[in-house]
Amino acid sequence: MTVRHDAVEVIVAKRDGGELTDSQIDWVVDAYTRGAVADEQMSALAMAILLNGMSRQEISRWTAAMITSGERMDFSSLSRPTADKHSTGGVGDKITLPLAPLVAACGVAVPQLSGRGLGHTGGTLDKLESIPGWRADLGNEEMMHQLEEVGAVICAAGAGLAPADKKLYALRDVTGTVEAIPLIASSIMSKKIAEGTGALVLDVKVGTGAFMKDLDKARELAETMVALGTDAGVRTVALLTDMSTPLGLTAGNALEVRESVEVLAGGGPADVVELTLALAREMLAAAGITDVDPADKLADGSAMDTWKAMIRAQGGDPDAGLPTARETHVVAAPASGVLSRLDAMAVGMAAWRLGAGRARKEDPVQAGAGVELHAKPGDAVTEGQPLMTLHTDDADRFERALDGLLDGVEVAADASYTPTPLVIDRVS
Amino acid sequence: MTVRHDAVEVIVAKRDGGELTDSQIDWVVDAYTRGAVADEQMSALAMAILLNGMSRQEISRWTAAMITSGERMDFSSLSRPTADKHSTGGVGDKITLPLAPLVAACGVAVPQLSGRGLGHTGGTLDKLESIPGWRADLGNEEMMHQLEEVGAVICAAGAGLAPADKKLYALRDVTGTVEAIPLIASSIMSKKIAEGTGALVLDVKVGTGAFMKDLDKARELAETMVALGTDAGVRTVALLTDMSTPLGLTAGNALEVRESVEVLAGGGPADVVELTLALAREMLAAAGITDVDPADKLADGSAMDTWKAMIRAQGGDPDAGLPTARETHVVAAPASGVLSRLDAMAVGMAAWRLGAGRARKEDPVQAGAGVELHAKPGDAVTEGQPLMTLHTDDADRFERALDGLLDGVEVAADASYTPTPLVIDRVS
Repeated sequence: MTVRHDAVEVIVAKRDGGELTDSQIDWVVDAYTRGAVADEQMSALAMAILLNGMSRQEISRWTAAMITSGERMDFSSLSRPTADKHSTGGVGDKITLPLAPLVAACGVAVPQLSGRGLGHTGGTLDKLESIPGWRADLGNEEMMHQLEEVGAVICAAGAGLAPADKKLYALRDVTGTVEAIPLIASSIMSKKIAEGTGALVLDVKVGTGAFMKDLDKARELAETMVALGTDAGVRTVALLTDMSTPLGLTAGNALEVRESVEVLAGGGPADVVELTLALAREMLAAAGITDVDPADKLADGSAMDTWKAMIRAQGGDPDAGLPTARETHVVAAPASGVLSRLDAMAVGMAAWRLGAGRARKEDPVQAGAGVELHAKPGDAVTEGQPLMTLHTDDADRFERALDGLLDGVEVAADASYTPTPLVIDRVS
Repeated sequence: MTVRHDAVEVIVAKRDGGELTDSQIDWVVDAYTRGAVADEQMSALAMAILLNGMSRQEISRWTAAMITSGERMDFSSLSRPTADKHSTGGVGDKITLPLAPLVAACGVAVPQLSGRGLGHTGGTLDKLESIPGWRADLGNEEMMHQLEEVGAVICAAGAGLAPADKKLYALRDVTGTVEAIPLIASSIMSKKIAEGTGALVLDVKVGTGAFMKDLDKARELAETMVALGTDAGVRTVALLTDMSTPLGLTAGNALEVRESVEVLAGGGPADVVELTLALAREMLAAAGITDVDPADKLADGSAMDTWKAMIRAQGGDPDAGLPTARETHVVAAPASGVLSRLDAMAVGMAAWRLGAGRARKEDPVQAGAGVELHAKPGDAVTEGQPLMTLHTDDADRFERALDGLLDGVEVAADASYTPTPLVIDRVS
């Protein structure tokens, strides 16, 4: 039974603060996907949703309608449970790279559908593409086969999953309607639910380098997504984690792969190891595995073995040298004392301008470009010592990359620095 | 000096409750007119404006930017002052027809650029086109010549005036963003200011058959438009007038022309005469003419002479018979007593469904279709007496036209009916 609606009727209902009916939501999402509701109508509706909000029931129905717009995957034939992770995006956030093989080494299959970067945050696929030979595009059967054989796959989402979301996301990007919690939550969760994972751990970033600058908003987003996942039968939990400073000591594609491999080899920066293990434990618990400590799988090399198998299965050579940038420029510490602030957004913008990210989705990225940090907040620094190294293939990018970068750096004379906890809260 | 802006920057500023700068407004209106800002971006901005409002300064700049998007007319070479009238639209609102020649007969030139009807309110051009031979499209020179010779012209606005408004209005119509006071006010006033009239009288309708159902909103719209006109050097005044019941005894194209001619002949319904004279007095005062009583010009036939000259100048035959509809259907009074309500919207919808109006701007209208009223609120009626006559060329339209029509009719047993004043308030 199809009920006919009208785009203006649906827009006006939301504009005037009303709650959309299930039937209105089903109709407008389907009609937009088919092209019967025009872009200009959907963008007016998106703005009304952003400003007037949506109830939990509306968000849940909107998510379901986006899932219905495409295909659903099914991992129930696999011999092990599945768990996936999604991060809302941050600077230096390479966690997916060590995390997926680590969790797989613990006995859980990880079907990680990832994206490319836009703006100041990097994309997981861009990072992995710096490995010679590695390819992001897999068919559904290849993906199933790799999940069964290797246990972990990181690949591009196929066009069949939630096409309504793909169309809507591109529209929101150009109409100032990205920052609507109902639309962010339904966009992320429609893809994750359609993907068919049994368990999902959300890493919701908070801070200057994150999409959500504000803890309350981040918590609202996390709670909305956990409720959506739970209602759809996916065991879902969220961590709220700090993104006021970059994760680890690198921001840039090959630079981050190198750091990820260090973590898989049992080393690497403390914050990257801490967050990788925290997320791994949540994924294992959500998948029902309680008798394996992921730290052991880093220590005994089995996570590294899974990493190499995962890279090889997608055509990459895990032992090949990684690309490096042709030019480097060292940024010196502006004063002596304790590094009290190293702003994630400032570093992310610099890495982007060096060529690690793209401004338009059709732009290429440089594999070797990015920022390497030599100190993190809390570390003692001496004036003139190397604080960061900038990497790029084009020396003329340094000027733009340096613009405003030191505004993100503060050195305190005394040792009054108090560290922010990395994992701020947990929502389940 | 051109400042570059970005559509998303402008949308986000308004979305977040900020005030747009002059430079942002100039840029976005110009870029939209040129096509550099896309429809989906402007519709998101329009929704943000509707929900977050605009300051007087923003509305004023927005109006100026829309005027700048096109040509401006100049009537300063005419030998007499100019005054124009704009109505926000109502059912049976044929006032422009007797008013323009009446005011011209009093010595003021009336350059009345009008539109066609959409939905339940009729359009002045549709009404005049029921006169055999009459044409709405005049070149600027023809218009100037007729203003000098006859003193009154009612014609279609050329495509050159405020093209930004034309494009934006079509967009608002399909995106649920018509009802934004800043956008309504700037749309009306950009055209009237660009038209170059020296004085302007606004007839802002309030009530069920009007765009503004609510007196406070109507007053806000009136005050906004008066301020915009005054700032632009146009002597502007607004009357707030009742639109809870149709004006006069007819709603429909040729039906309304016939009633207008009755008024010009010194007769016609009391409410049409009252409002025509009230608006004429305001137009004359705003144009600086204080020694002429328009009632005299109705009485002595000079307004009728000007009407005939105006119709002839645009190819029409003022003495030709007007078209009549092929089919009629009489609606009887449902009870005896005092007619206490005759809803403007109910009558407007019936006239529209009978063929007097259009649903899409490319639809034709029927010249003879509409509703003729045999009683008005306050009149005594007897059960079964003719209350209205419906006119249409297609008998199969009666059923739809009757649907809900009697819901707009109430007959009170006692004589407790209190009339609403026709002119509710004046804003200057």
